[in-house]
Amino acid sequence: MIIIGIHKFFTSLNDLERIFRAPGRFKFEEHNVAAHSWKVSQYAMFFGTLEEMNGATVNWKALYEKTINHDFAEVFIGDIKTPVKHASVELKQMIAHVEEKMMEKFILEEIPTEFQEIFLERMKEGKDSTLEGRLLEFSDKLDQFYESFAELKRGNTDKEFVIMYQQALKKLLEMPLKVSVQYFRTEILNDVMKEDTQINIVDLTNEVLNKTK
Amino acid sequence: MIIIGIHKFFTSLNDLERIFRAPGRFKFEEHNVAAHSWKVSQYAMFFGTLEEMNGATVNWKALYEKTINHDFAEVFIGDIKTPVKHASVELKQMIAHVEEKMMEKFILEEIPTEFQEIFLERMKEGKDSTLEGRLLEFSDKLDQFYESFAELKRGNTDKEFVIMYQQALKKLLEMPLKVSVQYFRTEILNDVMKEDTQINIVDLTNEVLNKTK
Amino acid sequence: MIIIGIHKFFTSLNDLERIFRAPGRFKFEEHNVAAHSWKVSQYAMFFGTLEEMNGATVNWKALYEKTINHDFAEVFIGDIKTPVKHASVELKQMIAHVEEKMMEKFILEEIPTEFQEIFLERMKEGKDSTLEGRLLEFSDKLDQFYESFAELKRGNTDKEFVIMYQQALKKLLEMPLKVSVQYFRTEILNDVMKEDTQINIVDLTNEVLNKTK
Amino acid sequence: MIIIGIHKFFTSLNDLERIFRAPGRFKFEEHNVAAHSWKVSQYAMFFGTLEEMNGATVNWKALYEKTINHDFAEVFIGDIKTPVKHASVELKQMIAHVEEKMMEKFILEEIPTEFQEIFLERMKEGKDSTLEGRLLEFSDKLDQFYESFAELKRGNTDKEFVIMYQQALKKLLEMPLKVSVQYFRTEILNDVMKEDTQINIVDLTNEVLNKTK
Amino acid sequence: MIIIGIHKFFTSLNDLERIFRAPGRFKFEEHNVAAHSWKVSQYAMFFGTLEEMNGATVNWKALYEKTINHDFAEVFIGDIKTPVKHASVELKQMIAHVEEKMMEKFILEEIPTEFQEIFLERMKEGKDSTLEGRLLEFSDKLDQFYESFAELKRGNTDKEFVIMYQQALKKLLEMPLKVSVQYFRTEILNDVMKEDTQINIVDLTNEVLNKTK
Amino acid sequence: MIIIGIHKFFTSLNDLERIFRAPGRFKFEEHNVAAHSWKVSQYAMFFGTLEEMNGATVNWKALYEKTINHDFAEVFIGDIKTPVKHASVELKQMIAHVEEKMMEKFILEEIPTEFQEIFLERMKEGKDSTLEGRLLEFSDKLDQFYESFAELKRGNTDKEFVIMYQQALKKLLEMPLKVSVQYFRTEILNDVMKEDTQINIVDLTNEVLNKTK
Repeated sequence: MIIIGIHKFFTSLNDLERIFRAPGRFKFEEHNVAAHSWKVSQYAMFFGTLEEMNGATVNWKALYEKTINHDFAEVFIGDIKTPVKHASVELKQMIAHVEEKMMEKFILEEIPTEFQEIFLERMKEGKDSTLEGRLLEFSDKLDQFYESFAELKRGNTDKEFVIMYQQALKKLLEMPLKVSVQYFRTEILNDVMKEDTQINIVDLTNEVLNKTK
Repeated sequence: MIIIGIHKFFTSLNDLERIFRAPGRFKFEEHNVAAHSWKVSQYAMFFGTLEEMNGATVNWKALYEKTINHDFAEVFIGDIKTPVKHASVELKQMIAHVEEKMMEKFILEEIPTEFQEIFLERMKEGKDSTLEGRLLEFSDKLDQFYESFAELKRGNTDKEFVIMYQQALKKLLEMPLKVSVQYFRTEILNDVMKEDTQINIVDLTNEVLNKTK
Repeated sequence: MIIIGIHKFFTSLNDLERIFRAPGRFKFEEHNVAAHSWKVSQYAMFFGTLEEMNGATVNWKALYEKTINHDFAEVFIGDIKTPVKHASVELKQMIAHVEEKMMEKFILEEIPTEFQEIFLERMKEGKDSTLEGRLLEFSDKLDQFYESFAELKRGNTDKEFVIMYQQALKKLLEMPLKVSVQYFRTEILNDVMKEDTQINIVDLTNEVLNKTK
Repeated sequence: MIIIGIHKFFTSLNDLERIFRAPGRFKFEEHNVAAHSWKVSQYAMFFGTLEEMNGATVNWKALYEKTINHDFAEVFIGDIKTPVKHASVELKQMIAHVEEKMMEKFILEEIPTEFQEIFLERMKEGKDSTLEGRLLEFSDKLDQFYESFAELKRGNTDKEFVIMYQQALKKLLEMPLKVSVQYFRTEILNDVMKEDTQINIVDLTNEVLNKTK
Repeated sequence: MIIIGIHKFFTSLNDLERIFRAPGRFKFEEHNVAAHSWKVSQYAMFFGTLEEMNGATVNWKALYEKTINHDFAEVFIGDIKTPVKHASVELKQMIAHVEEKMMEKFILEEIPTEFQEIFLERMKEGKDSTLEGRLLEFSDKLDQFYESFAELKRGNTDKEFVIMYQQALKKLLEMPLKVSVQYFRTEILNDVMKEDTQINIVDLTNEVLNKTK
Repeated sequence: MIIIGIHKFFTSLNDLERIFRAPGRFKFEEHNVAAHSWKVSQYAMFFGTLEEMNGATVNWKALYEKTINHDFAEVFIGDIKTPVKHASVELKQMIAHVEEKMMEKFILEEIPTEFQEIFLERMKEGKDSTLEGRLLEFSDKLDQFYESFAELKRGNTDKEFVIMYQQALKKLLEMPLKVSVQYFRTEILNDVMKEDTQINIVDLTNEVLNKTK
């Protein structure tokens, strides 16, 4: 008996609890894509609030839908190892294309007709140039920052996490989100650097800060 | 060095990845509270859409914030075993009161002053009588339904999951959300009952359906 | 089919293998309540022997029953997070009261009549002022000491484990068990401080020792 | 720095939380030797009480020490696969001999002189013909019964668990402990057979019962 | 400090212990790619022997190197979900191409010059039309057969494993390896169908057998 | 229904995925015997190649069969704790003897007659004085070296891993395999010592190097 419909969609959410981030690397703690999506929505809630308090107009519905949906495509493809995704611009595009096609196929085959348009809209790539798209990208990157920070804090000496930490940090500081970046830089990074850590986070952080004034 | 501020709040999100639902019971698959919160927000997205398509006005910002925040208090208290929560009305109130007090204490001590009011508002109990409060309750209950369904499907014969499945089902059918309940009853339950399962889901489901016409 | 009787009691023991200590915290190694109870009974065996060799009269039956039964109530309530338990004296009392009531209810409903009195006696709070009650408290605290020690040894930089280590140490040193405390202080702590550890245990220990001459 | 003394003994208890029972077999749930030892002491508490209520004199100190210590030797040798232990009488004796020698070596090298005699006495094989020795054997076998029962209940079709269940059952019924065996047979087995199970426990149980009237 | 050379290659082998097969699916038991590769080499040892006993000439060096190396590329790309791999012929080719390129890049950058040619030869796709290439494909498929069989045996009702079982079975029966297929069909399948299983393996097997006489 | 034949042999391979190396010790990462066997075959592939490039004649079929089969006997006996194995020469011989007898019994009872001779030959102890036997021993020891290295790198302060690291290193340097040892000493150890590690690997390594010029 083949099951389609919203029930199938709902049970597929459970699959994302079994897709782990950064597969193949040694980690002291694993993170699944479902929990990651939730943390991203929490970061977005905070930084959206901050931007709003500083005069921006936030489309909250769009922001939350972008964050909770942004990794749904991993149901189809899994969490492909980052080096692969970035092996070449061409490959990155190919994989994005595949994800898009599989998502489309899923929606057209599994989702009842009356909801297809809404699903197609919601599930498409969310990291666009709107405020909400940028807040998604910032929040997604922030979770990578925190995941690598936690590994370094506990003494994971694998080079990949140093690289992941510094790359995430660099991208966060360069995001076109003036208020959020400023708050991250002056408030959050300050507290991050006060933590007791096995690996010298202060040095790793300052190295990046010095390059991105 | 005591860390406070938003950094502390962000790292506490990670704690919810280590709080497991229904502690102490044998399960074929564990679910953490972070992933659960994400699934609840996904269910709410669907049923909010359905209600809206049928004429309701949804406050989407409120709906998403209710769902992603609804179990944050478990950071303080853990996932207390359900039988305890329901041992008596008095106890349930006491525990709710404790959670509330600890949340308040956390916000006043850890969250910067300018965000305290917003956090106090967002983190309070969300299951009120508004459409969004009811959609939260419906979605939260639906995840309990799916968690117990998955155990029964795989052959978990522990009585607790039969009880959990039937209680969740009963509450879902009785929720004051006409359109959502109707869709759940005619579309989703129909697909649920078509699945191959180790334990007879059709009988368990019909038993409840027959009592709640 | 509802199962009651001693069979139900025996299967409930298995539940304690699924209740983990200090839920929600990052740990390099998890400990379940069943294994913890066993370690506590082992510590008690040693310190009971030591007290006896120094002239005390030990009620061995009571001592062992206190240790193997002391956390059975967690079957009902789980391992509530320590900060909650100690949020206030009032709350601590409420939770102790709930545990007691649920235990009583369990015994009256599940345990055959002829064993109820014995179970009620055995399962009640064991940390009284008798020698055996104090040995239980000492042994229970010692396991907290060893659990936090092991995390610090392996480089867990989370502040909670420093606090847990120092609080357990302080309470151990203050217990009204002269011979045991003396042995712990001169023999065991001495060996503890000789271990290679990631986090400076010698300093953390001396800090407490200097305050509790 | 080589650590000896009681501290070394206490940390070795932690090792038994990492030795798993029936290694190499597929199980829905793992059990460590520390938790097993605790469950055995709980079973012994019950059956000791039952024997006492029926007129026997129980040496409680001996009973509890036998149960909590009976698998300590696995710290040295691990949980050797059962088929190996029983490959031949000669091999079984050789392994028992090795365990004894390693225990002796451990005590003489690690335990302070004043405690060596007591440790040697406590750690020796406990399954002798005394009432307490028989209660230990009964309780140890009962845990094997419950471990295999739980696997069969959840649908583990591996033949090893059918064999383990029936062998444990047979040995329990043949133990020279009239009162305990009678209670197990009439009360506990009765409840066991009322449970919903994936594998037909009633048939497997009756097959053994019919052979051991 | 960037580490290259054979040391880097050796530590990368460890990564394959953390890449799990069929990611995102619920399984009663996980299998990593390193262990899978070993099982494939064991199957190949048996069927190579069988073919040799029936007159074939086996290049054993090639056969073993094909089997132990056949999934090494997953170090770079992870175990991409099967539906993605087979979404389209074009995509499958693209992914194969990426794997090849990343392998080449790894070898040219990390492996000392004098070993590069040998590594390039050994790490290339092994499933060619030689006897050894066919034995690799047969053995790889056989592990998929056994992995899905084990899930069905234990009662995993997810449709994916029925499909995986029947597809693997069909491909095994169609492989151009007359002797091996015959032995698999008459000896192994016969024993497989005698096992006690939660899901009806006999029916699922016969369904395929009837289509592929 | 008792299952014998090659099917039984194939399913027993799966058991080795559940036998973990160095049982009872705290490790940041577990390794199963199946994955270990694969890594050993990979090391052997490299060092066999190196020896061949330097003029040796390698029996590749024998080398690969030795490596993939060398721990199959752990199916019967599990991974006995190393201290036990080396408690005495007599005990070591007894255990080797038991393994051999159980392997023989398994082959004679489970493996079809026509394959028994080949299995008996392949499954016997492989660490003989042939080039392939020495390469097996070297590769097996190298995996112990890498397993302990990884623990020390991540900050495991348990003395056992320092001892394991230094013993494996010492044995590797003393193996009668001139070319391989030389390459390991000058190339691999050099890279090993360049890694960032929590525990001072350079000192531990030099200590051994200085003793074994």
